Amino acid sequence: MNSIQMPNFFTKRVHLTPNRPAVKFGQKEWTFKELYDLAYKAAGHLQGANVEKKDYIAVLLKNHIDSVVVLLALQLIGTKAVILNNRLTAEELLYQLNDSQASLLISEDSFQDTLNSVKKGSNINLILKEELDEIPYQIPLIQEEIDLDDICTIMYTSGTSGNPKGVKQSYGNHWWSSIGSALNLGITENDCWLCTVPLFHISGYSILMRSIIYGMKVVLHETFDEKAVIHDIDEERVTIMSVVSIMLSRIIETLGEERLPAYFRCMLLGGGPAPLPLLEKCTSKEIPVYQTYGMTETASQFVTLSPEYSLKKLGSAGKALFPSQLKIVDSLGNELPPNESGEIVVKGPNVTSGYLNKDHQMTEGWFFTGDIGYLDNEGFLFVQDRRSDLIISGGENIYPAEIEGILLSHPNIIDVGVIGKEDEKWGQVPVAFIVTSTGTDLDDNQIMQYCSEKLAKYKVPKQIFYLKGLPRNASKKLLRRKLHEWL
Amino acid sequence: MNSIQMPNFFTKRVHLTPNRPAVKFGQKEWTFKELYDLAYKAAGHLQGANVEKKDYIAVLLKNHIDSVVVLLALQLIGTKAVILNNRLTAEELLYQLNDSQASLLISEDSFQDTLNSVKKGSNINLILKEELDEIPYQIPLIQEEIDLDDICTIMYTSGTSGNPKGVKQSYGNHWWSSIGSALNLGITENDCWLCTVPLFHISGYSILMRSIIYGMKVVLHETFDEKAVIHDIDEERVTIMSVVSIMLSRIIETLGEERLPAYFRCMLLGGGPAPLPLLEKCTSKEIPVYQTYGMTETASQFVTLSPEYSLKKLGSAGKALFPSQLKIVDSLGNELPPNESGEIVVKGPNVTSGYLNKDHQMTEGWFFTGDIGYLDNEGFLFVQDRRSDLIISGGENIYPAEIEGILLSHPNIIDVGVIGKEDEKWGQVPVAFIVTSTGTDLDDNQIMQYCSEKLAKYKVPKQIFYLKGLPRNASKKLLRRKLHEWL
Repeated sequence: MNSIQMPNFFTKRVHLTPNRPAVKFGQKEWTFKELYDLAYKAAGHLQGANVEKKDYIAVLLKNHIDSVVVLLALQLIGTKAVILNNRLTAEELLYQLNDSQASLLISEDSFQDTLNSVKKGSNINLILKEELDEIPYQIPLIQEEIDLDDICTIMYTSGTSGNPKGVKQSYGNHWWSSIGSALNLGITENDCWLCTVPLFHISGYSILMRSIIYGMKVVLHETFDEKAVIHDIDEERVTIMSVVSIMLSRIIETLGEERLPAYFRCMLLGGGPAPLPLLEKCTSKEIPVYQTYGMTETASQFVTLSPEYSLKKLGSAGKALFPSQLKIVDSLGNELPPNESGEIVVKGPNVTSGYLNKDHQMTEGWFFTGDIGYLDNEGFLFVQDRRSDLIISGGENIYPAEIEGILLSHPNIIDVGVIGKEDEKWGQVPVAFIVTSTGTDLDDNQIMQYCSEKLAKYKVPKQIFYLKGLPRNASKKLLRRKLHEWL
Repeated sequence: MNSIQMPNFFTKRVHLTPNRPAVKFGQKEWTFKELYDLAYKAAGHLQGANVEKKDYIAVLLKNHIDSVVVLLALQLIGTKAVILNNRLTAEELLYQLNDSQASLLISEDSFQDTLNSVKKGSNINLILKEELDEIPYQIPLIQEEIDLDDICTIMYTSGTSGNPKGVKQSYGNHWWSSIGSALNLGITENDCWLCTVPLFHISGYSILMRSIIYGMKVVLHETFDEKAVIHDIDEERVTIMSVVSIMLSRIIETLGEERLPAYFRCMLLGGGPAPLPLLEKCTSKEIPVYQTYGMTETASQFVTLSPEYSLKKLGSAGKALFPSQLKIVDSLGNELPPNESGEIVVKGPNVTSGYLNKDHQMTEGWFFTGDIGYLDNEGFLFVQDRRSDLIISGGENIYPAEIEGILLSHPNIIDVGVIGKEDEKWGQVPVAFIVTSTGTDLDDNQIMQYCSEKLAKYKVPKQIFYLKGLPRNASKKLLRRKLHEWL
């Protein structure tokens, strides 16, 4: 068998359970059939705009029912969706639009400012979702059958060095991720997943995929708001929710003395190692936290702590989900015994086949995550450092190399090192160590202003330190740990 | 991606949830870890008997914990298990052993007579499970990783004509079948599947696979006994059970006025079209029946009625499970519109790649089942009959199952089989074989009168034969060819 064909996930779901609730957004709820009708209509207008299966179509959209409709319309046509992060600057967007060779950008009014700048740097076709209906409708050509190897989505990760890389996520990657999760968490007819994480992230998009594959209702919020979360867990009988640490903290704080209802069965906690005090607080409040570890390249969850161990192995991310394998290797790629730290390498059908326009070396299907961790004697994974130099700020990945690149592009900056600093609110924030050219008079404001023009706000360094030189090793590699010591 | 590698299902399950209960047999229960230790030991003795991954190893075993251990030991080694039907004659066994080129037969004392005859006709190596421990132990070479395209099992189907054919069932076929079922029925931590169907059939073996893939307890019975069933549903908190019509009838009869407990959530009813009166009886007793359609070639269930339609579409087998596709075609292979009967053809990753040593034509992955059915306007499948069982009388199609359903609804008829008899005038006419409840005095006239009230004249059986019991195979499926022989 060279590849596996399956029915189009969305049309199959609609065929199986048309009348089950699919999405609740705002005050309204849509069944799978109602959602299909909307997506089919959108697909017809997109067809009118000459969107075809072979195309890469970029989307820049907020969490909204309209976005769900557009994303599903693209699945119906079978085109490849290049899903753009809402917080990127025009310059960052331009890079990804260019790299993916997207033929069309679907966006919305609320990004007008950014879009104006994008239009200056590119002649890409732009459709605003508000104007989709104005495009002449054509009966869409629906892909009733898909190949699991077909690319469904492209999501850019900033990468550890240089430019962001477009991760190819096939239908199979999404499928296996959903199935791996189901085999761990179970699936019941009463399940309802609350999505307050962005649909443009794998954390959010994977919830949409699970909805279709399981036939499960998703309650979609535009942004994370702890009061709205607590309200909807109650009102919509939410059973599962995806969070990062800072979201969970806020929920607990807002809950005060109250408890979550008994049917709420899983708080899926990703986005980096969780602080132990937070996990302990959840235990005392009987909030069922499942720590998890995953990335864009593994189409979400890869390792999750199984129900029976959620207390006994507090702090562990668990074991690799059923379809997946995991090992810890040293710098030569040799497998390490339990309790020794090394690089986490993973293998499984939910792992990406690679990056767009980039080579990526995989050894017999093993993907090197760049993350550091160890396995205990029973094979439970403890993730120690989310990539040695990665900064995680409010659940967002920030790669120092990217900020360093921007800073180095400033004519008066000659060397730079960026690291994460502990922050009560965000977990971490980026700070920069800078060496300026002699005789220059640069101040914090000027530097931050410079960064703001080129970087999303959360990536702009929150503090600047001025040095005469940076600590580097013999081969001139920046010694970030020295910077951490200084901090 | 050419093929998909995954962890060995059984070792992965043991790694994930070693302490969950796996199998209950007789008075004893084994966790996955305990079961693994037994299977690992058995694998060591099999290794001592030179069993290797490349081999075809035949097994002739009754439902028993030892059989589970042997079957799982073969999965650990990664060898191909040729699973033999317990009810075959020595001659039939010899054909299958020869056709599969099995290098070893693993069996048990209780088949001694048959085995003696087999030994006369073959020089195959034989190991009795009772003597497995006597083979020098070697540390087994466990396949920690499998390829979904690897063959896991071979099961022979009698076919309707000619010699039986060995169906190649890959790990992938079993996997996708399990996942398709899970997406329809859901999976919960409390699930427990009662297996009274034979492990040598796909109906039983697929329960074993689901156990490993879901991490679910199986209660294994040596044979079907309705009292033991009712007892264990209660005692072991069984939630799901696989049955064929006659088993379900007996359970209902034995239940009398009692009900099954509320946690019992699924009676998976396969093995051919079910008589409507039986389904109606289940509805009135609130037994959640899921009609299903599948075969050895699809690694069990292919079409199952989804929860919300179990009442509304009484009598339908449902829709093709999530990973699968289905259509109805005419004799030229053209797809037929709703409500027109034709051959059922199926496609999906749980469908066999073909038969051992036999060509089997598939068109773009579509498998021709030889079964007759139609889809209603909403796409629900109604299986009418095996094509070979179809009776054509004066140009009219008559489906034996329909007549059998009517006869079974008679209060004094407990079992029935209908076949076509050659007829000079009509080509064929239907005749019925009947088992009446003890002490009943039914005559031909009464029965034909009863049928005439409910069936078109050409469908009314033209002859009635009274038997003490009907010929059924190990999974209680009616052997119509035996009836033909009698005729």
